Amino acid sequence: MAGRDPVNPMWGGRFCQEPDTLIQEMNASISYDQRLYRQDIRGSIVHARMLARQGILSEEDMKAIEQGLLAIEQEIEAGTFPFATELEDIHMNIEARLTDTIGPAAGRLHTARSRNDQVATDLRLWLRDAIDGIVECLEALQVTLVRGAADHAETILPGLTHLQNAQPVTLGHHLLAYVEMLERDKGRLNDTRRRGNMCPLGAAALAGTSFPIDRAFTAGELGFEGPMANSLDAVSDRDFVLEFLAAASIAGVHLSRLAEELVLWSSQQFGFITLPDALATGSSIMPQKRNPDVAELIRGKVGRILGGLVGLLTVIKALPLAYAKDLQEDKEPLFDAADTLRMALIVMTDIMQHITINSEAMRIAAGHGHTTATDLADILVQEHNLAFREAHHIVGELVKEADRRDCSLDTVPPDALEAIHPLLTPAIQRRLTLEASVKSRSSFGGTAPNEVQRQVELWKTRLHIS
Amino acid sequence: MAGRDPVNPMWGGRFCQEPDTLIQEMNASISYDQRLYRQDIRGSIVHARMLARQGILSEEDMKAIEQGLLAIEQEIEAGTFPFATELEDIHMNIEARLTDTIGPAAGRLHTARSRNDQVATDLRLWLRDAIDGIVECLEALQVTLVRGAADHAETILPGLTHLQNAQPVTLGHHLLAYVEMLERDKGRLNDTRRRGNMCPLGAAALAGTSFPIDRAFTAGELGFEGPMANSLDAVSDRDFVLEFLAAASIAGVHLSRLAEELVLWSSQQFGFITLPDALATGSSIMPQKRNPDVAELIRGKVGRILGGLVGLLTVIKALPLAYAKDLQEDKEPLFDAADTLRMALIVMTDIMQHITINSEAMRIAAGHGHTTATDLADILVQEHNLAFREAHHIVGELVKEADRRDCSLDTVPPDALEAIHPLLTPAIQRRLTLEASVKSRSSFGGTAPNEVQRQVELWKTRLHIS
Amino acid sequence: MAGRDPVNPMWGGRFCQEPDTLIQEMNASISYDQRLYRQDIRGSIVHARMLARQGILSEEDMKAIEQGLLAIEQEIEAGTFPFATELEDIHMNIEARLTDTIGPAAGRLHTARSRNDQVATDLRLWLRDAIDGIVECLEALQVTLVRGAADHAETILPGLTHLQNAQPVTLGHHLLAYVEMLERDKGRLNDTRRRGNMCPLGAAALAGTSFPIDRAFTAGELGFEGPMANSLDAVSDRDFVLEFLAAASIAGVHLSRLAEELVLWSSQQFGFITLPDALATGSSIMPQKRNPDVAELIRGKVGRILGGLVGLLTVIKALPLAYAKDLQEDKEPLFDAADTLRMALIVMTDIMQHITINSEAMRIAAGHGHTTATDLADILVQEHNLAFREAHHIVGELVKEADRRDCSLDTVPPDALEAIHPLLTPAIQRRLTLEASVKSRSSFGGTAPNEVQRQVELWKTRLHIS
Amino acid sequence: MAGRDPVNPMWGGRFCQEPDTLIQEMNASISYDQRLYRQDIRGSIVHARMLARQGILSEEDMKAIEQGLLAIEQEIEAGTFPFATELEDIHMNIEARLTDTIGPAAGRLHTARSRNDQVATDLRLWLRDAIDGIVECLEALQVTLVRGAADHAETILPGLTHLQNAQPVTLGHHLLAYVEMLERDKGRLNDTRRRGNMCPLGAAALAGTSFPIDRAFTAGELGFEGPMANSLDAVSDRDFVLEFLAAASIAGVHLSRLAEELVLWSSQQFGFITLPDALATGSSIMPQKRNPDVAELIRGKVGRILGGLVGLLTVIKALPLAYAKDLQEDKEPLFDAADTLRMALIVMTDIMQHITINSEAMRIAAGHGHTTATDLADILVQEHNLAFREAHHIVGELVKEADRRDCSLDTVPPDALEAIHPLLTPAIQRRLTLEASVKSRSSFGGTAPNEVQRQVELWKTRLHIS
Repeated sequence: MAGRDPVNPMWGGRFCQEPDTLIQEMNASISYDQRLYRQDIRGSIVHARMLARQGILSEEDMKAIEQGLLAIEQEIEAGTFPFATELEDIHMNIEARLTDTIGPAAGRLHTARSRNDQVATDLRLWLRDAIDGIVECLEALQVTLVRGAADHAETILPGLTHLQNAQPVTLGHHLLAYVEMLERDKGRLNDTRRRGNMCPLGAAALAGTSFPIDRAFTAGELGFEGPMANSLDAVSDRDFVLEFLAAASIAGVHLSRLAEELVLWSSQQFGFITLPDALATGSSIMPQKRNPDVAELIRGKVGRILGGLVGLLTVIKALPLAYAKDLQEDKEPLFDAADTLRMALIVMTDIMQHITINSEAMRIAAGHGHTTATDLADILVQEHNLAFREAHHIVGELVKEADRRDCSLDTVPPDALEAIHPLLTPAIQRRLTLEASVKSRSSFGGTAPNEVQRQVELWKTRLHIS
Repeated sequence: MAGRDPVNPMWGGRFCQEPDTLIQEMNASISYDQRLYRQDIRGSIVHARMLARQGILSEEDMKAIEQGLLAIEQEIEAGTFPFATELEDIHMNIEARLTDTIGPAAGRLHTARSRNDQVATDLRLWLRDAIDGIVECLEALQVTLVRGAADHAETILPGLTHLQNAQPVTLGHHLLAYVEMLERDKGRLNDTRRRGNMCPLGAAALAGTSFPIDRAFTAGELGFEGPMANSLDAVSDRDFVLEFLAAASIAGVHLSRLAEELVLWSSQQFGFITLPDALATGSSIMPQKRNPDVAELIRGKVGRILGGLVGLLTVIKALPLAYAKDLQEDKEPLFDAADTLRMALIVMTDIMQHITINSEAMRIAAGHGHTTATDLADILVQEHNLAFREAHHIVGELVKEADRRDCSLDTVPPDALEAIHPLLTPAIQRRLTLEASVKSRSSFGGTAPNEVQRQVELWKTRLHIS
Repeated sequence: MAGRDPVNPMWGGRFCQEPDTLIQEMNASISYDQRLYRQDIRGSIVHARMLARQGILSEEDMKAIEQGLLAIEQEIEAGTFPFATELEDIHMNIEARLTDTIGPAAGRLHTARSRNDQVATDLRLWLRDAIDGIVECLEALQVTLVRGAADHAETILPGLTHLQNAQPVTLGHHLLAYVEMLERDKGRLNDTRRRGNMCPLGAAALAGTSFPIDRAFTAGELGFEGPMANSLDAVSDRDFVLEFLAAASIAGVHLSRLAEELVLWSSQQFGFITLPDALATGSSIMPQKRNPDVAELIRGKVGRILGGLVGLLTVIKALPLAYAKDLQEDKEPLFDAADTLRMALIVMTDIMQHITINSEAMRIAAGHGHTTATDLADILVQEHNLAFREAHHIVGELVKEADRRDCSLDTVPPDALEAIHPLLTPAIQRRLTLEASVKSRSSFGGTAPNEVQRQVELWKTRLHIS
Repeated sequence: MAGRDPVNPMWGGRFCQEPDTLIQEMNASISYDQRLYRQDIRGSIVHARMLARQGILSEEDMKAIEQGLLAIEQEIEAGTFPFATELEDIHMNIEARLTDTIGPAAGRLHTARSRNDQVATDLRLWLRDAIDGIVECLEALQVTLVRGAADHAETILPGLTHLQNAQPVTLGHHLLAYVEMLERDKGRLNDTRRRGNMCPLGAAALAGTSFPIDRAFTAGELGFEGPMANSLDAVSDRDFVLEFLAAASIAGVHLSRLAEELVLWSSQQFGFITLPDALATGSSIMPQKRNPDVAELIRGKVGRILGGLVGLLTVIKALPLAYAKDLQEDKEPLFDAADTLRMALIVMTDIMQHITINSEAMRIAAGHGHTTATDLADILVQEHNLAFREAHHIVGELVKEADRRDCSLDTVPPDALEAIHPLLTPAIQRRLTLEASVKSRSSFGGTAPNEVQRQVELWKTRLHIS
């Protein structure tokens, strides 16, 4: 019996034996590609309409197919659809069900197409939506950061290089740095979307088809820029997935940098922020712990996105044209990266909306480590016409003296000042405040509060923040 | 009420608000770490016994705990266990259920341990079993290949370098090359198992504990070599996962090489093998297709293992001691890599047991490309005392002549032979057969049938093949 | 003496001891960042001009600096510049030499800038040029492929899916698939160039500067779109390198696919192409070998580009703002990837210009494997109104019959045809030629010669090919 | 002329044209594989001796070859050897020079071997030495850390989980955690060395040879365990490089963790350590900076090792047997990883020998964040028989109260204590000291000073530290 009724109705005519369970499981992608059901149905409906317009399919069959597919969509969304692993993938699951419900007309739907161009179409439709969702999330985080920057245009914290206190900066300025990064992320994702928004449908298995199809119609109805120009490329190209994974990896790196700062800032040693209860996690053994688990997870999750990128580049490397089954490995890393990035963005936005800024702790820390040393050098250059290298050297000597005395630059006694250089006077010393420092750095893009405020206004306009 | 009785009973005392759904989902690992239930229960039972032996827990409590845990194990295996995402992980799910079933005694189980050492213990136990299973699968594939080598010690195919026909080799010899690779894979996995087989339990959160525990007892009962010597290392080390992922990646590369050969060999251009129906897949559009999908999938799946390795190395890079939540990202790549490798090995074994060898096609191909040219050079050196470089040059001229005439080396006419070099005679020419070629390469590890047979016998002994 | 005059004049004032050799070597980047000398000098000249325009530097000093820098550029290009490892990097090497040649005025050049913004500027300038060069190389390869496509619009070879003969396609069509891929590569690189073409100069160490600089002037003179809007971002952003490495990895994957095909096609089993002597390599032991070494190297070299991408993503992950020394690891992978990709493109173009196409071998191979089976199914659907699934099944039976008889579809005898299905007639059978097959696939983007020719013309216009 | 005297004497007989410069450059590996000269010469001498022993080479020729090779070794070491890119690699450079100096006898050296087995032998010999050197460096760092642990068995710093202060630990305990990691690194490298220490020489091109060679002799003389058992495997296996790169990546991750801690500890916010002048780097703009550049570089350099691993796994994936030119990409990542790891270890050892520990700052920090909360819970369990979960909850309430009052656990007033739970008394409160805390954690592998001292003694014996 089994020999007479082979399981797979698509290519069963040719085979006598059933693949055993494990191989079936390996071949099957239905456990994850069922996420494509909406795209698959949408693509099939448009394909059927095109076939009817071109006289390849009767109006009647087309309508039966369309109604059948919409009913299937409802079944899937209601959770009553009978997914079957032996039918391998979402395409065959839907087609088999369509045959059950509308009969032989279902068999005409697969005219002038193949699963090779069908799955490529589904995946491009899916990614398009996924990118749109992620770009929205990126923008929500930007909005949160810009609002924070507006509130903290004058809040001072130590600006770090090499994790060493370098110069005082404003928290608003710091937050806007991330707004810039996220803006580039949006740019990369939108470029990926644009470049990938071409329609493979109609490429058939690899070579195009002899049916008089209208690929421009299909592409247009599905919201693509147009049909892909080469059928071999259409079925074997996964650039759009790779490019997305690369853009997601870079965005993930940005989030990991911010997450690292949150972890640092919420440590006892920094104490710059406090996480709200809802965003801190306890310990099963240490009753006092308030761990920044979500920030740590965001920091770590870039690893899995990068892993997905590496995996897929490795898979596609050296594959001859056209379609090869290895390409089935494209979906899981794509879905995982999109889900991960989206979740990380939403959670990060939530964190940034709810952390408490400990401005006083930030300000105190900004005073450590002689962070106004550059200001002093700049004054010597600007007001006394020293070469910068000379001023740098003089201030270096003052720093050494302060370290020797374990005091700050503005408390080195006058005689010690003078011993280093006659230009070093108590009057100059008094000007070395954190406020004066940040205020002075008013060059374009600098940390001065007024410059931060100017940037905030630009971003408010750009992001339509009222 | 909800506000008064926070959801997480482990660290709830400290918090006022419930984390919202998404953050809960991010924190939760129960969807995948439930695979560790058996290890978790086993570890808890041994921990309870140790606590009782040391007088930290009453015998009565210990027995209640043990029975409660065994009942939970049965629930899980029966599919009736009520997993809850808000309980985060397998440890808390089991502990909460234990509290439900045996009451307050459950609260004494977590004495002198933390989830940090608990999860590290569970994961090491899991990996140990996983490695044992994979090593068995590696050995099964070796057995299959050795049997194939025994059958095909004299079957000749073209040995390739640069994918160019190089010299004739025997198929048995070719198959044994993979047996060697798999043997190294077993070695790497067993080294990983041995090095990782140390017990973290008792390290507690990070610093050890003040309870008078007996870590040697726990380690011994759980089959570890001994307790890990440093508690900070015990909770923050994931070398065993990284080392496994690296070993699995290399094994995956080996499988991908064999899979690539199967894909090549089953192509129309090679035609060296035929896949059985159960291992070939059809096309939804092309009725004649017999695609080597499973080999392609095996070839591609090394990508995901490598991706997991890269991801986790990236996650752990630059993490300060001791435990950080980023480490939660260790489980999914580990589980996926172990599952993938195991599945690929089983399926590859099945393939190798069922392919049809087209010996005639192999033999014909081995005759193309002047594959006996080296034999001729060797004869000139061995019997006529030419320097190898000189012999190489003479045979190069003969090859050029044969190409010009579009014939094989053994059909170049006598006068043309002589014109190249007087040592090139029809008598020598007649000795240039494929059989003579492979037979001559009888150096240790060479392709000669008798040498292959000798190696087969060694492997049969080594692998206990009757 | 050495103790009193520490080696590094930039930050020497503060230190008493010299770093020992190895640490100096680790810190030093001069061995590779000397490639940036032109960009560094160009940036410094523009910076000096801006300082002079703003009254921060005297005209006299500015001119001395400019002339001094141009003289240094000549020294470097003449190979007479004394590079010194103890001066760490290209910036300090040039500045120290400038001090030697023009005296104290050199010390004024570093006003209102830091090495942090300086190196970021240099690297962006370098990458801009590198991208332009690579895009030219991509276009040269496209031109070569389009010309090949024009010549081979009617040359038939087997189109493969799963490396199995699938349907006959035209070689021109196959070559154009790569033209499409390369066009996307150009798009990605140009997007990277555009997005990265913003000027960090003036961000100073991290916070901007108190000097009244004109960043818009500097940016404009250096050909940037404008100054970067946030100084913290300006010194810590390496997105442009990551994005380039990602785009280069994807381009590398495309080249590896083409290289794989060249390796396959030049094998004895395929025999589709012959490499010219200049592009084939011999063996030290096998006199007959003609190895496709360059194609293999191109195939392999995507590995190093991908490695560079992974490495740098890992380096930047979780780095807190602003500059950290880890970022010094950006240059070597960037330089290596740019060099590798450029070289691979030039060599691939050379290969594609010089291979010999063995059309006859391609044509013969295209006839194997029942590659016209889909054509028959399409005829049954189009002319006899069968559902595609039914037609697929009938042709599947015919394929089985042909295999049983070891003949091709068009030589199955009439009675056997009829036994399968009455629609299968000798008349239909006669229409199953390779030429008819490719000609029929004239859908947009299909493999039909006239469609290929149409695409060739479009590309000729687009790429200005006369 | 050029046409008549082709450049490459090894395979020149077959070709008419010279490869052009770029292709030559791509093919050539001499720029980096010249590092293998010593191994290549050693291998050739042993090969010649074996050929002579077997009567394949005359004693006279063997001696001429040996003397010629030793003279070449001296030339290379004296820097007078004329390396030539057109001779591709180290093997051909040496052989061509040998022909120049000893004449035709040189042509007999390449009997019964190929560059395929020769380069594999050279690389294994090189790696063996490289591993030995790195293991020495690992051990030197261990010795330094153990000495530090001996000095700081009682120094208290905050033990962190999630970068939050968790429990006080001893610095000695912390340093020993790294000693454990490095011990595993040594284990992995020694396993790699052992597994890779098999000799490919005599595998010839791929199939073995017809010359009566003695592979066991060659293997033994070169210090290998024995000859590799399969010639196809011998020339195509690069497991030993992959395994090394994986082990080096994991070691690099360990170093990056320690480096991260050094960066954190030397920040103003932590202030736990001070770097000596020789290990701190200044800023070109900020006169006060003392940057931990070397620690940052060590932290970052794991990226390039990981990149090399990923690159080579990608290169070898799906390569059919036997040798392919892609494998030439094995050397650069191997050399770079070995150099990088060695350098990082030496520099890290230097750092650890010269940092100043600020014990007082560590101790003060350890008192922040209620780090003795677990101790209190443990006392409640051990002395008052509460279940751990209950004790955890009570202490959680106390922590909340202390936070509300902004005081430490040991300064919450008696009435507030009692309000939480009657067991919380001033007497218990007084026991919550840092010293009592670390002393109590004396379980095996715990942080108690006496336990640390015990471990130090074990390591001193193990590492032969006097």
